[in-house]
Formats: sequence, C-alpha cells, structure tokens
Amino acid sequence: MFVKDLKYKKDMKVKDLVNSFQNLGYQSIELNNAKEVIVKMKKESAKIFLTFTSNMVTSGLRGFFAQLISLKIPSVIVTTVGGIEEDIMKANGEQFTIASFQADDVELHEKGINRVGNLTINNESYMKFEDLILPMLDKLHQKQSIWTPSELLKEMGFLLNDENSILYQAAKNNVPIFCPSITDGAFGFHLYLYQQKHKDFIIDPIKDFGNILFTTTHDEKKGIIALGGSISKHHAILATLLNGGANFAVYMTTAHSSSGSMSGATTKEAKSWGKVKDESDIATVIGDVTITFPLAMIAALDELEEENLL
Amino acid sequence: MFVKDLKYKKDMKVKDLVNSFQNLGYQSIELNNAKEVIVKMKKESAKIFLTFTSNMVTSGLRGFFAQLISLKIPSVIVTTVGGIEEDIMKANGEQFTIASFQADDVELHEKGINRVGNLTINNESYMKFEDLILPMLDKLHQKQSIWTPSELLKEMGFLLNDENSILYQAAKNNVPIFCPSITDGAFGFHLYLYQQKHKDFIIDPIKDFGNILFTTTHDEKKGIIALGGSISKHHAILATLLNGGANFAVYMTTAHSSSGSMSGATTKEAKSWGKVKDESDIATVIGDVTITFPLAMIAALDELEEENLL
Amino acid sequence: MFVKDLKYKKDMKVKDLVNSFQNLGYQSIELNNAKEVIVKMKKESAKIFLTFTSNMVTSGLRGFFAQLISLKIPSVIVTTVGGIEEDIMKANGEQFTIASFQADDVELHEKGINRVGNLTINNESYMKFEDLILPMLDKLHQKQSIWTPSELLKEMGFLLNDENSILYQAAKNNVPIFCPSITDGAFGFHLYLYQQKHKDFIIDPIKDFGNILFTTTHDEKKGIIALGGSISKHHAILATLLNGGANFAVYMTTAHSSSGSMSGATTKEAKSWGKVKDESDIATVIGDVTITFPLAMIAALDELEEENLL
Amino acid sequence: MFVKDLKYKKDMKVKDLVNSFQNLGYQSIELNNAKEVIVKMKKESAKIFLTFTSNMVTSGLRGFFAQLISLKIPSVIVTTVGGIEEDIMKANGEQFTIASFQADDVELHEKGINRVGNLTINNESYMKFEDLILPMLDKLHQKQSIWTPSELLKEMGFLLNDENSILYQAAKNNVPIFCPSITDGAFGFHLYLYQQKHKDFIIDPIKDFGNILFTTTHDEKKGIIALGGSISKHHAILATLLNGGANFAVYMTTAHSSSGSMSGATTKEAKSWGKVKDESDIATVIGDVTITFPLAMIAALDELEEENLL
Repeated sequence: MFVKDLKYKKDMKVKDLVNSFQNLGYQSIELNNAKEVIVKMKKESAKIFLTFTSNMVTSGLRGFFAQLISLKIPSVIVTTVGGIEEDIMKANGEQFTIASFQADDVELHEKGINRVGNLTINNESYMKFEDLILPMLDKLHQKQSIWTPSELLKEMGFLLNDENSILYQAAKNNVPIFCPSITDGAFGFHLYLYQQKHKDFIIDPIKDFGNILFTTTHDEKKGIIALGGSISKHHAILATLLNGGANFAVYMTTAHSSSGSMSGATTKEAKSWGKVKDESDIATVIGDVTITFPLAMIAALDELEEENLL
Repeated sequence: MFVKDLKYKKDMKVKDLVNSFQNLGYQSIELNNAKEVIVKMKKESAKIFLTFTSNMVTSGLRGFFAQLISLKIPSVIVTTVGGIEEDIMKANGEQFTIASFQADDVELHEKGINRVGNLTINNESYMKFEDLILPMLDKLHQKQSIWTPSELLKEMGFLLNDENSILYQAAKNNVPIFCPSITDGAFGFHLYLYQQKHKDFIIDPIKDFGNILFTTTHDEKKGIIALGGSISKHHAILATLLNGGANFAVYMTTAHSSSGSMSGATTKEAKSWGKVKDESDIATVIGDVTITFPLAMIAALDELEEENLL
Repeated sequence: MFVKDLKYKKDMKVKDLVNSFQNLGYQSIELNNAKEVIVKMKKESAKIFLTFTSNMVTSGLRGFFAQLISLKIPSVIVTTVGGIEEDIMKANGEQFTIASFQADDVELHEKGINRVGNLTINNESYMKFEDLILPMLDKLHQKQSIWTPSELLKEMGFLLNDENSILYQAAKNNVPIFCPSITDGAFGFHLYLYQQKHKDFIIDPIKDFGNILFTTTHDEKKGIIALGGSISKHHAILATLLNGGANFAVYMTTAHSSSGSMSGATTKEAKSWGKVKDESDIATVIGDVTITFPLAMIAALDELEEENLL
Repeated sequence: MFVKDLKYKKDMKVKDLVNSFQNLGYQSIELNNAKEVIVKMKKESAKIFLTFTSNMVTSGLRGFFAQLISLKIPSVIVTTVGGIEEDIMKANGEQFTIASFQADDVELHEKGINRVGNLTINNESYMKFEDLILPMLDKLHQKQSIWTPSELLKEMGFLLNDENSILYQAAKNNVPIFCPSITDGAFGFHLYLYQQKHKDFIIDPIKDFGNILFTTTHDEKKGIIALGGSISKHHAILATLLNGGANFAVYMTTAHSSSGSMSGATTKEAKSWGKVKDESDIATVIGDVTITFPLAMIAALDELEEENLL
C-alpha cells in the first residue's frame, strides 16, 4: 500500500478522514488500524473488554463510554474507582470545569478547587458525593453484607437515573464493571467509615476474580480495547489470558514501551500471549486518548452502522 | 466553560467533532484551541508562517500542505531539505510505501529500502532524484551563479508540474520557501558535485536571512503554525521575533518541554516574546501531527469557508 | 544560581556528579532537587511513603528497595501485586533475564518466555510460584480467615528468608506494605482457587484503608517518594491528603502531565493539596526510574551518612 | 545475563553504578550499552562524530564537550548555531541562570530575560554578543571574503581564550565543527548586517559538504554519538552514510520513534545503513541527555583511562 496525499474537502466526515489515515503516515496509520481491529472484533462476535482510567471519565468521554455500552459494544468494563466516583457525581448534576495546564495551583487550593490536567473538580462535588453515597450503601447493606465490587457497582447503577452514566447503562445492559482497587479513592474512605459503623459490611475482591474469569471462555473470541494503562488494562489482559488469550487487541496510550511499564506495553507483546498471531488483529496508537479514541471509534461505529451491525 | 459528555451521531463531520473537543479534556481541548487560533489568524489578516519537518512530507501531509498554499493559508514556508527532496521525488511519480515500525531493518537494507517510522522509501527513488536534479541545476546555473535557497526553490517549483507539489504551488502562488540548512540531505550532495564542476555556483544563505526578514514588518500581524520542531520552527520564531514578535502561535509536536529542546518549547514561552499576551492567541497541542494537524486544519477551513474567508 | 560547566574527574563519585547537576540544566537540576528533598524529608523526620510499580521490582531495583527498608528510609510502602509476586519468586531463587526491546515475541511465546520491556520472566517461574504460594496460604488460613492485604503481606514476609526481599525486610522492620489491588495478578488467581476450597477465606481491603490512614497523623510531617504512576502513587497521595497533606513530595516518572493521567501528575499539583507551598519541598523528575532513582537516592544516602543520619 | 539486585555502597563511584546498570533493567541497561559502544569506538580507533543541539550548550554540558575535545574523544563536531553563539557568550564571561519550568514568562519578558526550559539567558548577553562578533567578522573578512561555516568557526575559535570553550578547544585540537544552518540564530542576523555593508562577504555551505565528506573515508571505522535530534544528528548520519555507513552508533534523546522524526529515529534503523549489523555496536538511550550522557561518558572515560587509552 502506498502513501497518498491527503486532500481537504468541504464538510469532510470523520469516517472519511480516518479512512484516509490508512495512507497518511506514523500514528495516523495506526489509528486507522485500530478502527479496523475494532470493526473486526465486532464482526467476529468477540467479547469486548473495554478498559479506561479515571481521568478519561473526568473528561467528556464519560458520556461516550455510556453510549457505547447502550450500543452493546463492550461486554465487560474494567476501570479504576476515581472514574466511578466521578460518574456518580455527574449523574447527580455536578459539573467539571475547563481550566488550564498552567493554572495557579496555590490559588486553586485556596478556592477549594482540584486540578486534573486542564480540567478542575470542586471540593463541593466531593462533599455532595458523601451525601449521595451513604444512603446507597445503606440500601445495599440491607440486601446483603458481603459484596464483590462488580455486584456492588451494578446495584449502584440501578440507583442512578442518567442516560449518560456509565454505571446506569452498564447495570441496565447487564455489562459488569470490574474495579480491582475499589478502595483507592474517596469511595474507599466512605466504605471505610461505613464499615466502622457496620462491622459485617465487607467487600470481597477475590470472588470478583472468579466473576471476571467467567465473563468469557476459552472457546469464545475475545478482544481488548485498553485506553491508558494502570491496573484496568492489566486486569483485562490477565482475565483474557487465563481464558487462552485475546484474539484482538487495541491499545491507546500516551506511554511508550521504553520504561517497561504496563501503560506503555504494546500489542507487539500481545503476540507473546499466543493467540494473537496476525498483525491485522492488533493495533497500538500513541497519543492522547481524548483525540484518538473518538476518532477511531466514531469511524468504527459508522462502518458497523453501514453494515447493519450496530 | 464546563465539560460536556461527547455523543456519537451517525456520519459525524470533522468540524463537529473538533467543536465538541472544546468541552472534552486534555489535548482535545488544546486541539480545538489550535483551530480557533488558526481561524483568528486568518480573520485578522495575519501573515502566516507555516513550518514543518521532512518526515511530514514523507507522509501524505505533503499534498495537504500544497493544497493549503493554493488556498492562500500560509504566506511563508520554512522547512528542512529532506522534505524538499521528497516533494520533488513525488512530483516525479515516485511512490512511498506503508510499512511497519517493527520492520526487519537488516532485510530492508538488503532490498535497498529505507525506513522512516512506518513508511519506506526505495533507494531507487534517490537514484532517480539524481537524474532529475542535474538538468534542473543546469537551467538555474544558466540564469545566474549565486542563489539564495528560497530563490532556488522558487525556480525549481516552476520546473515541476504537479498540483500536489509544495514547491509547485509555492512558486505559482508566490509563497517563499525558506530552508536554512539546504545542504543537509541528498540535495546537498548533488549541490556539492555540481559545484565541483562549476566553481562559480554558490548558495548564499546570508542573503536569505534578509529575505525572510522582509517577508513581513513590525506593523503587520504575524502568526506561526509550527509542526514538529527543528530549525524550521526556530527560524520562523526568529524571523517574526526580529519583526516585533508573533501575535498568534500554534505549536503541534510530540516533544515535551522537559528537556529544554526547541521541539518541545511551548507557546507559553511565546509570551516572553512580548507581543502574545492573551491566552486566546496561542495553543500547544502534544500529539502526532499526522492526526492533530488535519483535524484542527480541516475544522478551521470549514469554519473559514462558512464565513466566506477561504 | 548560575549554570556551571561540568568537568570530568577520574574516579568521580555518584554524589559529586549529582551535586554538579544542580548547575547543569533541565532534568539534571530536578534530579538534584529530588535528592535535596529526600535529604530534607529525613532531616525533618517526616514519615516517608515510598511507592513503586511492579516493573521496577522486575528490575534489580528490588534489592535496592529492600536495602532502603533495612536502612529505615521508608515508613510505608505502597505497590501493585505484580511486584509482590516477583519479590517472592526471586526470594525463591528464580532468575529474570536481560533481553531486548526488539525481541521476537512469537518466538518468546513458543519458548514459554514473557517479556517486560528488555527483561524476561519464564513461565516456569510462575509455575513454581504456585507451588510456593499454596503452603503459605495454608499457614495464614490456619491463623485466621479474614485478612487485610497489608497484614497478609507482613505474614508472608516472615515466611521468606532473603535479605534482598522487599517483603522480608518490610516484615522484619515493621514497615507495612499496602497493595489496594491485591487480586490483579497471578496471586489473585491463586487467592481465588484457594477461596474456592476454603469459602471462609476472605481479603478485606476496606479495613486496610483504615490501616493506611493510621500509619500517620495530621501533626506528623509526611513525605512521598512516588516512582512511576498507577494506584500505588495515587493511594499514597490519598492517605497523606486525608491526614492534612504531604509536606514533601518527589515524583519520578516517564509520563508527562499533558494527558491528565495520574502517572504524569506533577508535584506542582501537590501545591493544591495545601501543605506543600515551598518550591524547595517538591521535585518532579522526568526519566526512566532505573536511572534517576539510584542516582538521587545514592547521593542522598551518602549525604545522610555524612551527617550521621543513616 | 541475569537481573541483579542493585545495592548501595558508601561513596559509590559513577563507573561502578553504570556497571551495575547492565543487570538492572529498561533504560539503565541501554545506558550501560551506550558506555560500552563508546569504549569500543575508541578501542577500535573509530573516527567519532559527536553531535549536539544548542540547548545542551546552554546547559553546563558545554564545558564537558570542550573537555572531551581536549581529551581527543571526538574527531568531528556537528551542531546548531545557537550553541555556537552561547559558547562565545560564555567565553566572554556571560552567565546563564538556573530558573524554573514554571516561571512567569510575561514577567521574564518585562525583565528582558529569555527562558530555555529551566534555564534563562539575559537580553544583555545577546547585546554584548553583538559587540563581540563584529570585530571578529572584521578580522575574518580581512583574511578572505568567502568562508565555509567550519573554516569560519575554526578561525573564531582561535580568537577566543577559554579552556572551557568548545570553539577554542576545537580550533586548538584541529577538530572541525560543522554547522549546516549557520544563519539560524542571532549570529545569522549579524552575518546579514555584515554582508549588507560588505557585499563580497559570503558563507558557502556547499563547499562544507565536501569538507565533512572528507573528514573520513570508506575504509576508516566510524562512530556516531548523537545527543538530541535535529539537523546535527542527521548531518553526521549523512556524512558517514556517504562514506559507507557508521560502524558504531549511540543515540541519546528524549524523543521516541513513533512519529517518524529524526530526533526519535533509533539505532535499530542504523542497521538499515548496512554496516552496523551487530547489536553490540549500537545503543539508543531514551532520557534527558544532561543525565544520561555524563553518566555513560564518565564511566567510559574511567574505563579508557584504566586501559591507558585516554
């Protein structure tokens, strides 16, 4: 395949731009590959594990993830607890604000504002979160005293009522959300305070290991779409690996492989899992996920839609 | 401004996606800012300095740059000589090939293939380049013996005949191309061989310093769109600085500011030039230019078109 | 302070090189700052939270971390479960191998070898891990049925006998190891299999949230040395934040702040926590931790040793 | 080779730390490889091309480069003009200042201070540079009217008198400095002003292409130590390529290969040049050069010294 000169046309569609990326160069080629692997996953009825880190939920990708769940793209979600907290805050009407990477952090602190890159979250949102979470935990505790993270998150999803909520859509569409480090956030603090008052209230992460294992089988085709790194990416790789390895893998990240980190681990490594042997089934895209993922995914959705697969 | 949940719509347009980026997060926000600064440059009739490195010409951005010249977006181009060589090769029908970052480089070498990231160029293309360039130099030499790089490139542009060629469009539209390191490539080797046979043939880079200085004035508004780093970025900053500083600046790069390099220098620094004081006039986007630049530029072109400014 | 020209001297010591970094430039300056903040933490008797990701344990930093614990540098460790698995493997005599980033991953897979950057781990090491871990879990289960991760890791440390083991030194020196995602690895799988046979065996992560909270107090000075990102970094920030914020912070990472990730979050953000107001108490060093951390830490140890603080 | 646990010893030497890097992991391994390739270059009497970008001269590496020239390490230097300007400023007693990446750039501008990462240069230093450079150009012009960049820089080196000056040591030790973009800086502006008054004064970059070609031969062994990217790296690769390719190559950079840039191009690509076939003859180290280069080079110098090769 040859490089082709990109040409602007008025009112160009996202799918046409992504399509032209296959002849452009560097990461644009990989981005189009990612789109093609995603389409292939769906065409071959693979069970899709979608993973993302909490900073992506802080951004407006949160509603996009919820929409993807409603469109039956992922079968399993793996994420970190920060994203869950923020999904609940937003379902409760909290707003996050566009700011600047160069913000004056001392000044922000004095105003009770927390910065995540060029976005900010008010302390107040965390305080209201406390008011929200306690009655939820009471309702859950009345049902049973030992919960796995995924069962707890499903039940909480049913208590929300927001079409743009990840938890809500996941509960409604029966997509489990795994969160192997559920205490690593404000939510952990509230779980702790709750347990202090209700000593029988326990989170069982081990049982959830079985739950994620049984979301799929050795025989089933499996795909991973990992956005960012962290334990969410690692956990999905692990769960599919114990089921014989993923058949398809798309990694989107800003990290590079040079430091041996999970965030920067590439799909080239995926070949060492044993199942992914074909270059056409893997793609690693280096770049900010708020740009690369919408591009690849919107183009994939348009393509699936055209083939009546959506 | 608040974060807004991104939502997929069928057949979404590039301009609508980029527009939604202003409420998304991290680099997507900066990408929309870049689009807005580009639109503002044009609306305020700034003289635009567009700079890019040769790897971008290797990619299919080459034809896009040519189109932007024909659409009167840039007034001045600054680039490195590798891009000029490849523009000429492509104008002569040479094809570059899509390959892989993981290619076997020893095998490629044995086949006479050179790799640039996930693209490749055949040795043969360089050999044909030699055949092309000698008659061109002869024609130029017949006109005069001392040339500045920009005058030489203009004359060579007139000798090409390809709508997708940067040199051709620049010559036709009277947009000077500055290349302060014109010997740093295969072209330099051919210039050297030519000079060995024609001792009076000289390239005068000093005079071109004056030429770039006089492309603009202190009073004129000036904007920079710098893609990647290197001396092309530095030279445009220098030329505008000596004319009182740029009023607008968009930097798109994969490099970060942490190592003090020119590639990673941000538009925050642009404030220290003295003219750019307003956050709304600068944008730095971190990411692969083959993805970020088409997105921002296509959205800007659509917006300019709607306002009859194209 | 002025830039000073670096000069080579025969048999130069690490501490002298790091000292000269304060007048060198870019990340070398930040690296010397990191050393100074670490020395300050210790001089002011701050409680030090040391966090690292598992890839650093895969590397030979594992023995260095163990040594730092024996030297009473950190008071609290936070890490991910992969590192714990590998610490146990190594305590059992397993060897990891130096390989290449460009290794043939299909070939590696066929040989039963797993790659982590330019290092590899044999499948066999994981199999032997299984044989090791089951009798350990039996011993623990005989003591009690509900364990927090930190209590479990302490008990396991006592069952090892290797001066270079993180778990062994931590147990011996009464330094708690927190691991908020203890199921995210091969260890999780073994915990799961064990629980299948012993239904009363439960890991309680919520109680450990209390345990990390009570490792320190509002009144105590607190410092963070975060190597890499992930939940280990986040968890230490959270635990100190709920105790009024860290007074000192050193972040060493390859990630940049541009994507809003935890890995790339800088100590500039630390100022928004409220306690860290002085530039002299924070340092962010961008670079591979296998290079930057030994340099800064060895220089700090030499300095502490000279002042009889080690 | 196996991973070995790193252990702190009091008063550790740089060479011992770098030696232990060979068993550590990730970039530390590559850094030790770089040291070994440098030692090998010298042992096999290769002609060494040392390239660096101007930001490294801004830092205190400037004196280290000068010292390396006096120690006969490089045979050829390739750099950008910014570094040359700053070498002259420093030879004239100008001081650069340690500042912060987070400096207030508007405030700096008002004070007449220019920022390069976490270093700053006063406007005044540039003004004094003007006073320095004019009498130098006068002296040169009296000798001859057409100069190549390397001949001009040699002559200027003789006019300086500072042991720590790159130009001075290069002139004294007969090491040519190539600068294919000599007009891209304040120096370019002064050359322009000078040419305005002395029309016969011309810089001939083409002839210098021949000069760099003839610094070496096909038969000679050749090595490249490229610090950072830009045209300095590219020009050294080109000059050795036209002489049959480099036998040894060490690249140190913060850039990654994912965007197809010259800065991020790896030594893996060097294999496609044809001469470098053995992994033991190349090394790419990702990281800030102010940290990685002194480490690798100091360890190499100590090793060469021990073998009486210095």
